[in-house]
Amino acid sequence: MKSINARCALGIFALALSGAAVAAEIKPADQIQIRQAGYSFMSWNMGKIKANLDGTFDAKQVTAAANTIAAIANSGMGALFGPGTDKDIGDVHTNVKPEFFQNMPEVGKLAGNFVAAADNLAKVAATGDAAAVGTAFGDVGKSCKACHDKFRAKN
Amino acid sequence: MKSINARCALGIFALALSGAAVAAEIKPADQIQIRQAGYSFMSWNMGKIKANLDGTFDAKQVTAAANTIAAIANSGMGALFGPGTDKDIGDVHTNVKPEFFQNMPEVGKLAGNFVAAADNLAKVAATGDAAAVGTAFGDVGKSCKACHDKFRAKN
Repeated sequence: MKSINARCALGIFALALSGAAVAAEIKPADQIQIRQAGYSFMSWNMGKIKANLDGTFDAKQVTAAANTIAAIANSGMGALFGPGTDKDIGDVHTNVKPEFFQNMPEVGKLAGNFVAAADNLAKVAATGDAAAVGTAFGDVGKSCKACHDKFRAKN
Repeated sequence: MKSINARCALGIFALALSGAAVAAEIKPADQIQIRQAGYSFMSWNMGKIKANLDGTFDAKQVTAAANTIAAIANSGMGALFGPGTDKDIGDVHTNVKPEFFQNMPEVGKLAGNFVAAADNLAKVAATGDAAAVGTAFGDVGKSCKACHDKFRAKN
């Protein structure tokens, strides 16, 4: 973590939630890997919530997972889609279609929908209402899928 | 993300914040990759906070980053250190020393210190006080380092 920290800390001046991606000093290959890390970690937490909905509902675990998804969604990942990140770099592969980078207004809208759904899931999870979590979880899944269907090379 | 979701969703019954790791149906190689994703994503957010402390302080960005670190810290990553994750698996490499898995009480204590420091950073970030963020950020860094120094093969 130390080496990655040092790399990241070289300088990031501004981060947008979506749309205009300001990635400053983070190398494109690192941007791809960090954004993939964010998606993987959200995915793990989505999986935990699903397992809770399908099995025994542990409100504390669901809340922690929902808070993690919402926090990552709000962390400014738009900055990780900077110039040069629209294609594979060496052995770093990206599944983002080139069209993503040519349709930033639409991407911004989809990203906004995702952030709103994630925020709502975190809010609902805090109530401990399993049925409401199920609905909010489904909405997050739909908002993920809306972007994947359009802009993800492999689903 | 869909495929990873599906994998994760196969079944996770219980997740501990630290210490006893219940990893259920997530394959050891996936556990290693998901925990690395979590650390990478936290590292990116640590880098953003550092850049804010070294340059222009954007309280909103710092808060988002601190919230992300705290949420990931509280997400139950202990579950990602299950049996079989103490060594490389195929081309999936882990930097965690074997001693980590033989000293769970100490690991639990270090993890608890990290979670407390991350929670405090998020709390302080919400105040917008840059100097206080600097101190809280340093404390998080120390809590990372305390574990890395003991249990991380490469620093």
